[in-house]
Amino acid sequence: MSYRIGSGIDFHELVTGRDLWIGGVLIPHTKGAIGHSDADVLLHAICDALLGALALGDIGVHFPNTDEKYRNIDSKILLKHCIDLIKEKKYKVVNIDSTLTLQEPKIKPYVEKMRETIAGICEILVEDVSVKATTTETMGFVGREEGLVAYATVLLQKV
Amino acid sequence: MSYRIGSGIDFHELVTGRDLWIGGVLIPHTKGAIGHSDADVLLHAICDALLGALALGDIGVHFPNTDEKYRNIDSKILLKHCIDLIKEKKYKVVNIDSTLTLQEPKIKPYVEKMRETIAGICEILVEDVSVKATTTETMGFVGREEGLVAYATVLLQKV
Amino acid sequence: MSYRIGSGIDFHELVTGRDLWIGGVLIPHTKGAIGHSDADVLLHAICDALLGALALGDIGVHFPNTDEKYRNIDSKILLKHCIDLIKEKKYKVVNIDSTLTLQEPKIKPYVEKMRETIAGICEILVEDVSVKATTTETMGFVGREEGLVAYATVLLQKV
Repeated sequence: MSYRIGSGIDFHELVTGRDLWIGGVLIPHTKGAIGHSDADVLLHAICDALLGALALGDIGVHFPNTDEKYRNIDSKILLKHCIDLIKEKKYKVVNIDSTLTLQEPKIKPYVEKMRETIAGICEILVEDVSVKATTTETMGFVGREEGLVAYATVLLQKV
Repeated sequence: MSYRIGSGIDFHELVTGRDLWIGGVLIPHTKGAIGHSDADVLLHAICDALLGALALGDIGVHFPNTDEKYRNIDSKILLKHCIDLIKEKKYKVVNIDSTLTLQEPKIKPYVEKMRETIAGICEILVEDVSVKATTTETMGFVGREEGLVAYATVLLQKV
Repeated sequence: MSYRIGSGIDFHELVTGRDLWIGGVLIPHTKGAIGHSDADVLLHAICDALLGALALGDIGVHFPNTDEKYRNIDSKILLKHCIDLIKEKKYKVVNIDSTLTLQEPKIKPYVEKMRETIAGICEILVEDVSVKATTTETMGFVGREEGLVAYATVLLQKV
């Protein structure tokens, strides 16, 4: 039983006039996340953790923000691509833990749907996907609602 | 031997007129951490890492800051509750690593006591608990001594 | 097969008139990182993750910034020392994942050299070392190019 760990962190600015996608779920809010893709900070952090665990580069290498192909792309497609790479390398996901830092809105009502979405793409149980959230107690750029940050850690196991 | 990983991050503001509890230890300082509980940023990050490893939600779900029951509560009680949940699920803690970011004061004199406290609650050896610390080199809200942040990672093993 | 995890985070300010060492590689840039040693933020985060996994203290304990012996020291020497401590304890590195957050410059051209450097010191394969990078989307002190931050996670295994 051979294990590997990975970790990812992602940042996006919050602006008016954009959708707020987090964990593959559209969250009603006055602001949305800006980025080349749909700017789903949580899925991006998980992608980076998966890639990192097998040292396959990072999300910027695989999906360059200069490539028109990825403009406004659904990040669930990016996550699926990362999972396919993991499977090619004969690894599977044991569990995913993640934390979202944002001041507003409360994401608790959407966490179960996020977990189901992520688990579905990663072909694991909902019980193997954790999505946690915290404010930064109004401090820093997250506290000023200028942006949001997601952290993810993953444990992989050789199949 | 089945493993799982978890990670947690927690933030608290520093203000005058509050105690500074870190890792279950009262630290003499001109400022303390503000929060609904005793605002022990390190124990909170560890709680979140433990809960996250088994996808049991987060500290805000288990101990809502709107619940009077948790006002000024000793976070050691919260950590004990998280460990009990881990044990119920038939897991044990392999090791805990953590990093505290704060500008002042130096916590080195208190690290051993923190490790003993955490190890005692988690029913593991002191050698299986790591508490590290760094400043942010005066940068950001931590550098301006507006607040402090703790990061924790845990490895669990099926009993 | 007994595993342990560790995580590290490190911060350095960027100023003119200093070299920019990241991952053991000298990066051409208008600013460099300030610190008591060569201020290699990535190697420091990896050192802290290695020390943390075995609860051996932190980089500040092992290499105090008040000790003239470590002034401007090459952080590759510090990493080698940490690896020697791991080996003494009869552990080996399974894999290292890391993320650098900085606004400028792009480090992609230097990532392979960083991975080779780290793998060489840690006596593991390049395939077992991951170096990822992201901007903070211009937010915070990293976004303002006042500093840079590195995050590292490691998985160790008993030999």
